Amino acid sequence: MNKHFMLAASALAFTTSAIAQDSEPVAALSPNQIVEQASAEEWIAIPEEDLLVMTLAPDAQGNPREVIIQLMSAPFSQGWVENIRKFARAKWYDGISVNRVQDNYVVQWGDPNYDNPEAAGETKPLPEGLKVLTEEDYTISKRAAFAQAMLRKAKRGFAAMAEDAKAALQSKRFERRNATTRIDPYSADAFFQFGWPTAADGESLQARMWPVHCYGMVGVGRGYSPDAGSGAELYTVIGHAPRHLDRNIAVVGRIVEGMQYLSSLPRGSGALGFYTEEEFAKRTPILTVRVASDLPANEQPQFEFLDTESETFTKYAEARANRRDPFFIMPAGGADICNIPVPIRPAPNG
Amino acid sequence: MNKHFMLAASALAFTTSAIAQDSEPVAALSPNQIVEQASAEEWIAIPEEDLLVMTLAPDAQGNPREVIIQLMSAPFSQGWVENIRKFARAKWYDGISVNRVQDNYVVQWGDPNYDNPEAAGETKPLPEGLKVLTEEDYTISKRAAFAQAMLRKAKRGFAAMAEDAKAALQSKRFERRNATTRIDPYSADAFFQFGWPTAADGESLQARMWPVHCYGMVGVGRGYSPDAGSGAELYTVIGHAPRHLDRNIAVVGRIVEGMQYLSSLPRGSGALGFYTEEEFAKRTPILTVRVASDLPANEQPQFEFLDTESETFTKYAEARANRRDPFFIMPAGGADICNIPVPIRPAPNG
Repeated sequence: MNKHFMLAASALAFTTSAIAQDSEPVAALSPNQIVEQASAEEWIAIPEEDLLVMTLAPDAQGNPREVIIQLMSAPFSQGWVENIRKFARAKWYDGISVNRVQDNYVVQWGDPNYDNPEAAGETKPLPEGLKVLTEEDYTISKRAAFAQAMLRKAKRGFAAMAEDAKAALQSKRFERRNATTRIDPYSADAFFQFGWPTAADGESLQARMWPVHCYGMVGVGRGYSPDAGSGAELYTVIGHAPRHLDRNIAVVGRIVEGMQYLSSLPRGSGALGFYTEEEFAKRTPILTVRVASDLPANEQPQFEFLDTESETFTKYAEARANRRDPFFIMPAGGADICNIPVPIRPAPNG
Repeated sequence: MNKHFMLAASALAFTTSAIAQDSEPVAALSPNQIVEQASAEEWIAIPEEDLLVMTLAPDAQGNPREVIIQLMSAPFSQGWVENIRKFARAKWYDGISVNRVQDNYVVQWGDPNYDNPEAAGETKPLPEGLKVLTEEDYTISKRAAFAQAMLRKAKRGFAAMAEDAKAALQSKRFERRNATTRIDPYSADAFFQFGWPTAADGESLQARMWPVHCYGMVGVGRGYSPDAGSGAELYTVIGHAPRHLDRNIAVVGRIVEGMQYLSSLPRGSGALGFYTEEEFAKRTPILTVRVASDLPANEQPQFEFLDTESETFTKYAEARANRRDPFFIMPAGGADICNIPVPIRPAPNG
């Protein structure tokens, strides 16, 4: 891997300097090519308990549509995650539908009569024993969750970006303020932790941290505060990251397969993208939602994500921030956390 | 408007302080409600010459699908914009198709045989007299384009956000670095200019500036550099802002109506989201593309955008960065430039 990283660094020098080079420029690897070269040890298997298999009704041509959701790992949002497993195991989600598709925002699924004042009394009764969460649960204490050493390790991915931004600054091709900070308009600090994009309200261990709303992340619909949602209503992001929802709604996971079945659904023309009464036929039925570990062994999907504390992830994040593969002529010098999607793939032996 | 701005500020104080207040909290306006209160003078009509009407084939149920594109106004990307009008007036776009739909990235339309080595010689001949653009044309000189006073005026929208971030900082509810800068991971400066989201590589007038890739922005497909594209291949962003494309591809406009007809198209399963040979039936035919000013007067669409240098836009941008309408409990304290979409609407008398 080091060999390729050096080639990439030399390609940057070539790109950002007008000085003639003796050597030919070497095509740098794309971020995906970097990921392809990760070692097997850098991939982390997703526990079966953390995978949901959501089967939508077949499409108009009869093709099956299966969506796989990864629930958040500890220590994030665990109250909702436990509720969601309870909903799935009670088969409560079976027979609900996608009721809201708002362009550049979210797709939301749940009880079609949720939040419909005209359907009072007709909503699906919730399973017993659900946890009641509060807005305090949207964030966690950094100190309680992580040893500082682990945190520093996790931050490596961005340190490389900062170094590179400095190099670009020295090249005088462009000015760059705050080159050594992990720039995020929404928080004091943004970084990857345990495979998830997160942010914090400070750099110290006294800070609070939270998972952030990127494309494909899954969150919990709710009414007005203090309601923090049970997990009966879920949504996923189908547009530009709505980071203003961070710390206002619980993030509980992400779509790892089948995103296109949700993102390409017809948009609803009602308020907030809900389907109007005339459009009820556009609601996509959800046939079943199962926790993968409850399925027969041969039907269990197997996925893994690239360790966000690995050397390859560091190189991948740096390459996302500074594209040097042949199509690109001007590396950006930075990337926002939602433009560095965590690589996820079916397990090779799955 | 001042009345509501004050109410919003007092709502913030209530939200970010645990100190009991004598007065009841007042529901703050949502960003859209702020826009609804803009005066007629704050809306700027889009010239008919800058609007393209792209008619797709009707959908499977026979419903019409019309997409309206606003071409960039001077001084941005004018070489490509001139080419695009030439393509439209030569009716070159009539009969092409949407050939690529890549989830969380772009929808691209053009000659179905573009860039297909097996179709050599079968591509559609281009109109004569097209401009040949270069990568130098991806950016413009700030000095050449704008008087400094105008620029300062345009920056007002972010000054309010910075003030608010400072107030939030003082409330000690969260730390915030760089509160007084317009934070952008991809540039030295990001701001709205003449109705468009833009970025620059410095704050001075010596800097270069460019339009940025947000959701719904339209760009020009190209091959490997030095090819900078002619305008024959166009795409729009259907996912998280791919800001790494800034300064690497020409941005030439945005979708102002009918975005949902493009963003909800089935994704292609080939490389880069192109439809494979087995999927050619999924290509959406483009029947016609017309410059609005060439249409009969009664068929010309009329749109207007909120002046990005207006007082209302300033308040809107600030409210996007600090949501205080009733659903929200924690204002973000900032927003990235692509999470502040420029308000656009059909002209009330159109």
